[in-house]
Amino acid sequence: MNNSENSAVKIIPLGGLEQIGMNITAIEYEDDIIVIDGGLSFPDDDMLGIDLVIPDITYLKNNKDKIRGMVVTHGHEDHIGAIPYIEKEINIPLYATKLTMGLIDYKLSEHGLLDNIRRKVVTYGQIINLGCFRIEFIRTNHSIADSAALAIYTPAGIIVHTGDFKVDYTPVFGDTIDLQRFGELGKKGVLALMADSTNVERPGFTPSEKTVGKTFDHIFDDNRDHRLIIATFASNVDRVQQIINSACKYGRKVVVEGRSMVNIINIASELGYLKIPDNTLISIDEAKQYPDEKLVFITTGSQGENMAVLSRIAASIHNKISIVPGDVVIFSSSPIPGNEKSVYKVMNELEQKGARVIYHDTHVSGHACQEELKLIYTLTKPKYAIPVHGEFRHLKRHAELANEMGIPKKNVKILTCGDVLEIGEDTFKVTDKVPHGGVMVDGLGVGDVGNIVLRDRQLLSENGLMVVVVTLESGSRQLLSGPDIVSRGFVYVREAELLIEQCKDVATETLYECLKDENADWNKMKNAIRESLGEFLWERTKRSPMILPIISEV
Amino acid sequence: MNNSENSAVKIIPLGGLEQIGMNITAIEYEDDIIVIDGGLSFPDDDMLGIDLVIPDITYLKNNKDKIRGMVVTHGHEDHIGAIPYIEKEINIPLYATKLTMGLIDYKLSEHGLLDNIRRKVVTYGQIINLGCFRIEFIRTNHSIADSAALAIYTPAGIIVHTGDFKVDYTPVFGDTIDLQRFGELGKKGVLALMADSTNVERPGFTPSEKTVGKTFDHIFDDNRDHRLIIATFASNVDRVQQIINSACKYGRKVVVEGRSMVNIINIASELGYLKIPDNTLISIDEAKQYPDEKLVFITTGSQGENMAVLSRIAASIHNKISIVPGDVVIFSSSPIPGNEKSVYKVMNELEQKGARVIYHDTHVSGHACQEELKLIYTLTKPKYAIPVHGEFRHLKRHAELANEMGIPKKNVKILTCGDVLEIGEDTFKVTDKVPHGGVMVDGLGVGDVGNIVLRDRQLLSENGLMVVVVTLESGSRQLLSGPDIVSRGFVYVREAELLIEQCKDVATETLYECLKDENADWNKMKNAIRESLGEFLWERTKRSPMILPIISEV
Repeated sequence: MNNSENSAVKIIPLGGLEQIGMNITAIEYEDDIIVIDGGLSFPDDDMLGIDLVIPDITYLKNNKDKIRGMVVTHGHEDHIGAIPYIEKEINIPLYATKLTMGLIDYKLSEHGLLDNIRRKVVTYGQIINLGCFRIEFIRTNHSIADSAALAIYTPAGIIVHTGDFKVDYTPVFGDTIDLQRFGELGKKGVLALMADSTNVERPGFTPSEKTVGKTFDHIFDDNRDHRLIIATFASNVDRVQQIINSACKYGRKVVVEGRSMVNIINIASELGYLKIPDNTLISIDEAKQYPDEKLVFITTGSQGENMAVLSRIAASIHNKISIVPGDVVIFSSSPIPGNEKSVYKVMNELEQKGARVIYHDTHVSGHACQEELKLIYTLTKPKYAIPVHGEFRHLKRHAELANEMGIPKKNVKILTCGDVLEIGEDTFKVTDKVPHGGVMVDGLGVGDVGNIVLRDRQLLSENGLMVVVVTLESGSRQLLSGPDIVSRGFVYVREAELLIEQCKDVATETLYECLKDENADWNKMKNAIRESLGEFLWERTKRSPMILPIISEV
Repeated sequence: MNNSENSAVKIIPLGGLEQIGMNITAIEYEDDIIVIDGGLSFPDDDMLGIDLVIPDITYLKNNKDKIRGMVVTHGHEDHIGAIPYIEKEINIPLYATKLTMGLIDYKLSEHGLLDNIRRKVVTYGQIINLGCFRIEFIRTNHSIADSAALAIYTPAGIIVHTGDFKVDYTPVFGDTIDLQRFGELGKKGVLALMADSTNVERPGFTPSEKTVGKTFDHIFDDNRDHRLIIATFASNVDRVQQIINSACKYGRKVVVEGRSMVNIINIASELGYLKIPDNTLISIDEAKQYPDEKLVFITTGSQGENMAVLSRIAASIHNKISIVPGDVVIFSSSPIPGNEKSVYKVMNELEQKGARVIYHDTHVSGHACQEELKLIYTLTKPKYAIPVHGEFRHLKRHAELANEMGIPKKNVKILTCGDVLEIGEDTFKVTDKVPHGGVMVDGLGVGDVGNIVLRDRQLLSENGLMVVVVTLESGSRQLLSGPDIVSRGFVYVREAELLIEQCKDVATETLYECLKDENADWNKMKNAIRESLGEFLWERTKRSPMILPIISEV
């Protein structure tokens, strides 16, 4: 290992820190860059009308020629969701394990990109060479199969990136996380550990996925006379496997409902990650031939998403499934922060229709708790720690945990997006900042909605708008028609005729004032109308609709 | 007690069941009605721009002459917040304990109503006569002092209403809930128990408020070198008392920030519910004379509310308090469902500025858990159970708990708003439905925002709007000006000039098509423009702004 200053490698997180989700990190050395993950995030509450948020990859575009490829840790949206958008900008080869690549392929084909991009499926233990970097994929456990940690052999030393992970000693599919390999790497010497911070506040160990299977068995056993509906995350293939296992054990047919659930189950079973005995899956139409107690439905909607299957069932707007008293509905999930109210709403609606809703002990996390993190630190014994994956408060707790594990404070760094961290045997400092942040996607528009548009949507959503239309004669500036007033989202107009009439009067008066002044241009008139009407409406209603004066000249 | 059919009393919940918060229930017998509580609720996420929601009291207005008064269980917004609005409609006398009445008085005076309404302060154990009803106020514990349960002596028997309550054997202020009285009433014979369902899913007992005081002492002790900022619910006077106790013990001055916090502390200390030693409270300006480690700030904002003190501090927009590294910020609260994301955002912002945020073991609930509910059932031995205060799923669990406590299923009823439950020794059935629901308050408008306005706000918030203005010559129907296009919240116009130009073309073409057809009236034209532009924009952008065609004629 070369200890000289110039063997420092750069670690550049472009997303995934301040903005939860949207995981993407560049690792750079001289003329080589590799990218870890390409995730999206879902919009914050104040991003009205936005569909999703992808990372700003200006830095990658500006250094396109250096990029040797993207290595992907696992198939969750916050790690793969932005890949099609990234590939449209910079066509780079992709490396991932089989299921992860299956999910990426599906995404790329939806965007019509499948044929243009080099993709290579990697197995655990395999090492790929990308420029000066060698990258080894290491088996981990997580809430999606085929997750990997990465050992990145760089000129400065070995960087271990855990991806999202947990330690599951009794996994549903495949083997336990390759703790031996983490130990071997530790023996060789790990320069830096970048580990998952999501559950750093939780003491102890995350329970095995298999514990949920046991709960399912109990629920199936206790509810032999009732129809079962189970909502979970579409990507949690092991969870789906366990539902199928219980269904077979208790003699039920399985109906899968919800586009993403159907897609992922198809991909996972084609690739061998899901074992579904023959004659287990039936279509929703075939289900009519079976009594309720012989059926289990697996659906989307565990987060109370508006148009997902379970929410539509709860709201009685699903065209094929209606709740009947006695139905048992299981949320095999916990609400992601921000979704609590929607989830509870769906639960209440289901219970009101006579269903029994079960949501205790029906989910386990896919992220490592404190003792698991300590285990990884103990095995890898890194010189430096760089907490990743979590809100800032989690990163900070993780930094403290790293200190407790014997890594001195000066060797632990909480990065923010765009930081350029130079790291080497004797180097560990942020030396630069590159462009970063979220790019909002609204329909087909990528980045065309900015703060001004969002601020207008906010204003409109709170108080609606009032359009004031006036036609003036060109030259003479005689008022030819108007002011006419149209409002939306402000007040129910049929019950506010008087108020609208008064608004016309206020606008007319202001307009005549302005027309008297020969210097008053249109902008001045518009501002005057905005001001006088705004004041009038605030005084009368304590509301501030957006006021939009429009002047035509004929 | 008269057992005949006609001695049945009516229980009519007008709010507080489907719509969380907004607690209000009428109890009626022949020509007498009493009202329990008059709460508001905060708007759901889909009630854009709405400030608060109050109950529909049509039924009370229609039966105004029968109403003998309102009895109020405690001073939380979801039990007293709608009182000013209710009093404006039906002026009725109010009965409540001292602190509760103090908080009501403040509300009434804000609405300029204080002089018009009869108000009587009641003490625990006191019985008031309202028509044929006698109402006894019974001491309980809750997260606000002076909470009461009600024993309502009706011609059909005794109805016990717990209000919101918990059992605190070591309360901070006053005595433990009057369990003896619950027992005595049980001995006499309780017809129905209406008990708090909020925490029915939690096993065991809710910890005493005093446990939080101990945590505070530990935090004060551990952080002798740092400034402390503690955010909590303004109404939790006992919590504030404990902060003040710790401050005195550890020699800190206390600064109170936030309008509602200042108000409630003033009211509570004037009425004797808060003991603040002299020279403890100082103003924010005086605070400058003290070193950081000699100060503790008590603030609003524990729910991440946008404009509350703590959120402004976190966002660096508070004009007098800025976070310095080392500050310790305590959330003495847990997020109310729906507020999680805002709370975490504030926590992250504070940590990013160098504060240490503490939020474990710094709060206890004010509601009874399972064992406390069982205790109340065991003491009162009611014939009927009517679960109140909770989401539907809580009411249903509560019904099951009542069954477990020996009350047969036919004697337990989950009501929905507007139900008229007739209850007597041999009667227990819903016989009618009266008007009910939420009335939205937006600014000064009460009930003038309905579903049409909300739907428009929703549409505007998601995709913004595009106004198309056209001026036609009256008679000839010549196009004199336009189509002019103004958009807001749709796309950043300076970067979408081409798109806007194309929109004009589409609108112009459509318009000329329409003008060829002599039968095309304005409505037809507007619809045609809406349709053609809508299609064009969806195809080009996959967005659907509201399209507002406006035709002027001169």
